[in-house]
Amino acid sequence: MSKVIAPGATIGILGGGQLGRMLAIAAAQMGLKCHIYAPEAESPAFEVAARHTLAAYDDMAALQAFAASVDVITYEFENIPVEAVAALEHMRPVYPDRRALTVSQDRLLEKTFFNSIGIATAPFADVKNAGELARAVAQIGRPSILKTRRFGYDGKGQVVVREAADLAVIHRSIGGHPCILEGFVRFSREISVIAARGISGDFAAYDVAENQHAHHILSRTTVPAHIEPETALRALDIARATAEALAYVGVFAVEMFVVEPGDNGKAQLIVNEMAPRVHNSGHWTLDGAVTSQFEQHIRAICGWPLGNIRRHGRIDMQNLIGHEADDWHQILTENACLRLYGKAETKTGRKMGHVTRILPEDAA
Amino acid sequence: MSKVIAPGATIGILGGGQLGRMLAIAAAQMGLKCHIYAPEAESPAFEVAARHTLAAYDDMAALQAFAASVDVITYEFENIPVEAVAALEHMRPVYPDRRALTVSQDRLLEKTFFNSIGIATAPFADVKNAGELARAVAQIGRPSILKTRRFGYDGKGQVVVREAADLAVIHRSIGGHPCILEGFVRFSREISVIAARGISGDFAAYDVAENQHAHHILSRTTVPAHIEPETALRALDIARATAEALAYVGVFAVEMFVVEPGDNGKAQLIVNEMAPRVHNSGHWTLDGAVTSQFEQHIRAICGWPLGNIRRHGRIDMQNLIGHEADDWHQILTENACLRLYGKAETKTGRKMGHVTRILPEDAA
Repeated sequence: MSKVIAPGATIGILGGGQLGRMLAIAAAQMGLKCHIYAPEAESPAFEVAARHTLAAYDDMAALQAFAASVDVITYEFENIPVEAVAALEHMRPVYPDRRALTVSQDRLLEKTFFNSIGIATAPFADVKNAGELARAVAQIGRPSILKTRRFGYDGKGQVVVREAADLAVIHRSIGGHPCILEGFVRFSREISVIAARGISGDFAAYDVAENQHAHHILSRTTVPAHIEPETALRALDIARATAEALAYVGVFAVEMFVVEPGDNGKAQLIVNEMAPRVHNSGHWTLDGAVTSQFEQHIRAICGWPLGNIRRHGRIDMQNLIGHEADDWHQILTENACLRLYGKAETKTGRKMGHVTRILPEDAA
Repeated sequence: MSKVIAPGATIGILGGGQLGRMLAIAAAQMGLKCHIYAPEAESPAFEVAARHTLAAYDDMAALQAFAASVDVITYEFENIPVEAVAALEHMRPVYPDRRALTVSQDRLLEKTFFNSIGIATAPFADVKNAGELARAVAQIGRPSILKTRRFGYDGKGQVVVREAADLAVIHRSIGGHPCILEGFVRFSREISVIAARGISGDFAAYDVAENQHAHHILSRTTVPAHIEPETALRALDIARATAEALAYVGVFAVEMFVVEPGDNGKAQLIVNEMAPRVHNSGHWTLDGAVTSQFEQHIRAICGWPLGNIRRHGRIDMQNLIGHEADDWHQILTENACLRLYGKAETKTGRKMGHVTRILPEDAA
C-alpha cells in the first residue's frame, strides 16, 4: 500500500494552522505538493498549499476523497479524532501512527506509557469522577493539579487544587470530564527536546531547548538550555527511548522539568508531556538550523534520510502572542528573523508569529 | 496612491516560475498574501500562493483586475513587457520601476547606462542591421560576440564572431534582430553582487559570489569569491552606484568579470549585465544567510527595513539542471540543503532545483 514518496508527490496534512502552514512551505521547498484538510475556512495553511479541503474531521466521504488524492498523510496537532486517522490509514500511510496519537491525546495513557519505559513523570492518579477526586488528593497531596485527560493545551482544562479548595467545586469547574490529578513538581527549568525518527529507525535530535511560559503559553525558547552536559544527554536519551518505544515516525517534542538535586545529587528530569508533531519550541530551527523541524518532519514521513540538525548560533526565540505582533515594524529593524502566520484576526492569547535571534555562540 | 504595506497585505508577482515561487514563500513567512500573475498553466508559483491569475501579459483587463486585488507589484524576471508595467503602475506601486526594467531589457541601453556612470563594460557597438555588422567588427575586432539587444538569457540569442566567420551568415543566424557586438573579455573569474536598496535609500549587499557556468547556465556559486578584499570592495561599490543611479527599489544582481592585472596593476572589474530581480547566484541565501534574497526583496518593495545579510558559513551552491535533479535522494543523504522547484517535467537545460552546502568558514 505504501508508495515511494518522490518529489512531485502530494503530502496530505490534517489541520490548517500555523504548523500546517510551515509544514506545507517546507514540503514545497523540496518539490512536494500539499493538500491541507481543515474544518476552519480561514486556515492560514490553505494560502500556501496546492490544494485544500474544507470539511469536518468526521466527514468520512471528504476524508476518503482527501486520502485518495495524496501519497502520505500527517497531522499538525494531536487533537485530531483517532477515528479520522483510523479511516485514513486504510487508504494511505499515516505518520505519526495511531498509537503515538492515542498515547499523546490522553494524559493518563501518556504518563502510564512513560512510566512503563522507566521514564519519570509527576505522580498522578486517575480521577474518573468527583468521588474519586478525594481519594486522589489523599494519595497525591496538595497542592496538586487536576487536568482533563483529553483535549487540554496551553493551560486549558487545568485547575490547581490548593490547600483550602472545595473538591466538589473544583471538579465541576473542569466540566466533570475524566481527569487525572498530578502532583506538583518544583522545577528549576522547563526544557524540551525536538527530535525525529525516520521510517528506517534513524534518529536525530536538536540541542535541548529551554522554555519560558507566560499564562501557560510558550513565551520564549533559548538554545542550548542552561543545564549540565550530562543532564542534556539524559534529556536526549529520554527522547530517543520515547521514539523507539513507539516506533515513532516524524518529528516530536518531549517537554520535561529539571528538578535541582539535593546535596551532592544530580538534577532529575521529569517528563511533562509529549507532542506527536512539530512543536512551538522548535520554531527557531526555521532560521537557526541547517534543517528546520518542518523539513525534518517531511523527510521522516516520506521515508527520506533525516537532515543536519546543526545550529547556526546560540538561539533566542520569542513568541508573538496576540498584540505583541503589532510590534512587527520595530522587530524588522533588529537583526532578527520575523515570522508571521498570516492569521486574519489578532486575539489575546493567539499565536501570531515568532522572532528568532541567532547570536554568537560564545556570548554571555 | 501608495499604501502602507503591513502584514496581511497582498503582494502581486508577475511571473510564476521558481523565482516567483520562492518570493511567494518568503512573503508568506512574513504574514503577507501573494497573487501570482503568469501566462503558463503549470506555473510552480501558483501552488504556494493564496491566489493566481492565468493570463497573458498583454491582457489589459486581467492586468487591471490583478492590480486592483493587490497592494504592491513586483516581477520575477526582466522579460515582462514594459507596456504591462506601464499599465499597472497607474494603479499600484511597481518595484523595481520601469526605468530599471527598461535598462536591463536592452543590452545597448544597459551598457550605455553603466558607462554613463563610469562603470566599465566590454567594448560594444550598436548593430541595427546586417550592414552595420561589418563596421562594428572593424571597430571591436575578432573574436567578438553578437548578441540580440533584447530577450537573451542563459546564452540564448548569442553567437561568437570568429576569425573566419561569414558576417551575413552570422547575422541571419541570430534572426536579424537588433543586436550589439561585444568585445571578448579575457577574464579569470565571473562574480556577482546580490544587493538590495530600500524605498528610503538604505542599501545592503551580500558578500561577493563567484560563479561557474556550464553551457551558458549557472552551474555553481561559491561565497565568498576568491578575490582580493580590495576587489570585493570595488564590486560592492559598483552595485551601490548602480542602485543609486537608478533609484532602485528591490533586490538586484550585477554580474561582473574579473580581469587579472598586468605587471604590478590591480584586477579590473568589467560589468557583464544586471538583473532587476532576485538572482540564481543568490539562491544560497535561502539557507545560508540570516535573511534570504527573497525576503530581502519583499522587505524592500514593502518599504520595510532591510534584513541582516550575514552568512552562516562558507557557501557552495550547486544548480540542479535537468536530470541532475534525479540525484535528489543521494543529495538528501549529505549534509546539504536540497531545494526543488516543483516543476512538472524534467527537461535538458531546465533549472529544477539547487543544493546549498554551508561549510566551516576556515576550511581550505
